[in-house]
Amino acid sequence: MEDRITLAHGSGGAAYHELVAEVFLPAFTNDMLAPLGDAAICANSGAQLAFTTDSFVVQPRFFPGGDIGRLAVCGTVNDLAVSGATPRYLSVGMILEAGLPVSELRRITASMAAAAREAGVTIVTGDTKVVEKGGCDGIYINTAGVGLFERRPLAACPRAGDMILISGGLAEHGLAVLAARQNLDFTPPLLSDVAPLAELAAALLKAAPHTTCMRDPTRGGLAATLHEWAEAAMSTITVEEAALPLKAPVSAACALLGLDPLYVANEGKLAASVPPAQAQAALQVLQAHPLGRHAAIIGRVEERRPGMPLLLRTAYGGERIVALPRGELLPRIC
Amino acid sequence: MEDRITLAHGSGGAAYHELVAEVFLPAFTNDMLAPLGDAAICANSGAQLAFTTDSFVVQPRFFPGGDIGRLAVCGTVNDLAVSGATPRYLSVGMILEAGLPVSELRRITASMAAAAREAGVTIVTGDTKVVEKGGCDGIYINTAGVGLFERRPLAACPRAGDMILISGGLAEHGLAVLAARQNLDFTPPLLSDVAPLAELAAALLKAAPHTTCMRDPTRGGLAATLHEWAEAAMSTITVEEAALPLKAPVSAACALLGLDPLYVANEGKLAASVPPAQAQAALQVLQAHPLGRHAAIIGRVEERRPGMPLLLRTAYGGERIVALPRGELLPRIC
Repeated sequence: MEDRITLAHGSGGAAYHELVAEVFLPAFTNDMLAPLGDAAICANSGAQLAFTTDSFVVQPRFFPGGDIGRLAVCGTVNDLAVSGATPRYLSVGMILEAGLPVSELRRITASMAAAAREAGVTIVTGDTKVVEKGGCDGIYINTAGVGLFERRPLAACPRAGDMILISGGLAEHGLAVLAARQNLDFTPPLLSDVAPLAELAAALLKAAPHTTCMRDPTRGGLAATLHEWAEAAMSTITVEEAALPLKAPVSAACALLGLDPLYVANEGKLAASVPPAQAQAALQVLQAHPLGRHAAIIGRVEERRPGMPLLLRTAYGGERIVALPRGELLPRIC
Repeated sequence: MEDRITLAHGSGGAAYHELVAEVFLPAFTNDMLAPLGDAAICANSGAQLAFTTDSFVVQPRFFPGGDIGRLAVCGTVNDLAVSGATPRYLSVGMILEAGLPVSELRRITASMAAAAREAGVTIVTGDTKVVEKGGCDGIYINTAGVGLFERRPLAACPRAGDMILISGGLAEHGLAVLAARQNLDFTPPLLSDVAPLAELAAALLKAAPHTTCMRDPTRGGLAATLHEWAEAAMSTITVEEAALPLKAPVSAACALLGLDPLYVANEGKLAASVPPAQAQAALQVLQAHPLGRHAAIIGRVEERRPGMPLLLRTAYGGERIVALPRGELLPRIC
């Protein structure tokens, strides 16, 4: 890999995977880390814990539909929820820049507290460091989370034959942050979808207990999630373009900005891989929840076609290979 | 409190306490957070977990005796160990500046892996963000940790009559970092004491099972720890100046730089409050361990003398009130 860290190493795409594979895994390798799941599963004398961490450096700190505090809680809650655990405990580690207005910090902590209540988790420990002016950009927040398993943990990747579901419209978080950063005015404004998925994930697992696995497609978008799934399952995942839920203003904004919504980050969407026999039950329970009203079955896990982990079937019957995102589309999106 | 965050808010001293009391506690309040212990104790259907977090922004990243990676592992391990839990699982959240040499990152991750092995903990989950050049200072690391209780959790503060022990020489971490930052050459060099205290803490609890509580006196030094203890116990803690273990070069450097070693950070020292009947057993087991060779009984928890939570008895029989550190003595010491 390259000699110096670049923005692409934080992207969730190819350079990021290279960094993890070549630097972090060799240094830290162990059975619990190696699956690279969103949350680690820690065997605990009978009980099993899920444990995860995420740092948030989103810029700007406040954006339509959310802020860095809500994002920091939801991001970690969602990593726990999609592992199949019930999110329970959060830690909060803050790095603050000298000069940050306390009023902003209050807004952010209030937003974190509200999101934690919404998600049913408890912030149980924290730490704060302050760096000199210029030492960071206002505020960076790390949250780590512990969840408890009330059922078997989910698999790490889909099984051949599974149907792929998404709980709602794509690309809303990434576009909202980008619009706020670039002072783009959309009418109506594009709102981030940032939301805690704990309740939605629990409902899904209750209605479709054979759900193979779940993920929240954040950095790198749905394309990165489905790529990782296909590679891990040694399968090809095909997605029906016409089935992808996309709000009209999101489609329009993506067209205008030249962005592919498959690559743009979501912060309140759940992707699930479900055996066909339970796919309709899964769809119905998602659509019955306020966060899943626009849920859809969007694709299927098929037999491997070498070199084509992810295929998009267009409305006209054509097929397009969807590549793993390379480089950093939108830095500091979360 | 003030309108803007200052370096003092990250100090572990008075301004930091004010920030926690006025901003974080009101926003996040709950029974598990409220004790403000170094690790949260999470009730877990029969088993009890310890869960803690810490962010590390030390500058420079490499200093005599350690580096930011070793510090990030030991800091969190030690917070778990002094809670009375056995440290087990760590998460690592990195914020990297674009332009950081990968060779440095490799050195740091290797150092983290070595420290984790030394401490008997497993790094089970991680996350990496990259910010643009100038977005942070090279690398910031958050570690969160989960520990398991194999015994009852320790108390939050000492009991009247307890003896206070420290496991070795004070001020070594803070001085080593300061020397590295200011290019001060001491011969022999002052080395940071950064080390994992899990084994030492476990040995202490085995030899002195009635130990009331433990802490690792980091930011704010031993003075901050004893202040917090005295306030929480509504007592006065008296410390015998002559009993404080101080390496000769540390004494000399503190005198030269005008620093009080009671306020300077340690990263491999354990303070314990132990009932008198077990104080000698505690001292012996500490001194028998490589990390506790210079352990000493340094003081006592006495009846409250209003306005004097912490008193230093000088070699000449005088008494001096030791104030809580105010402001930031040494920014970015950890």
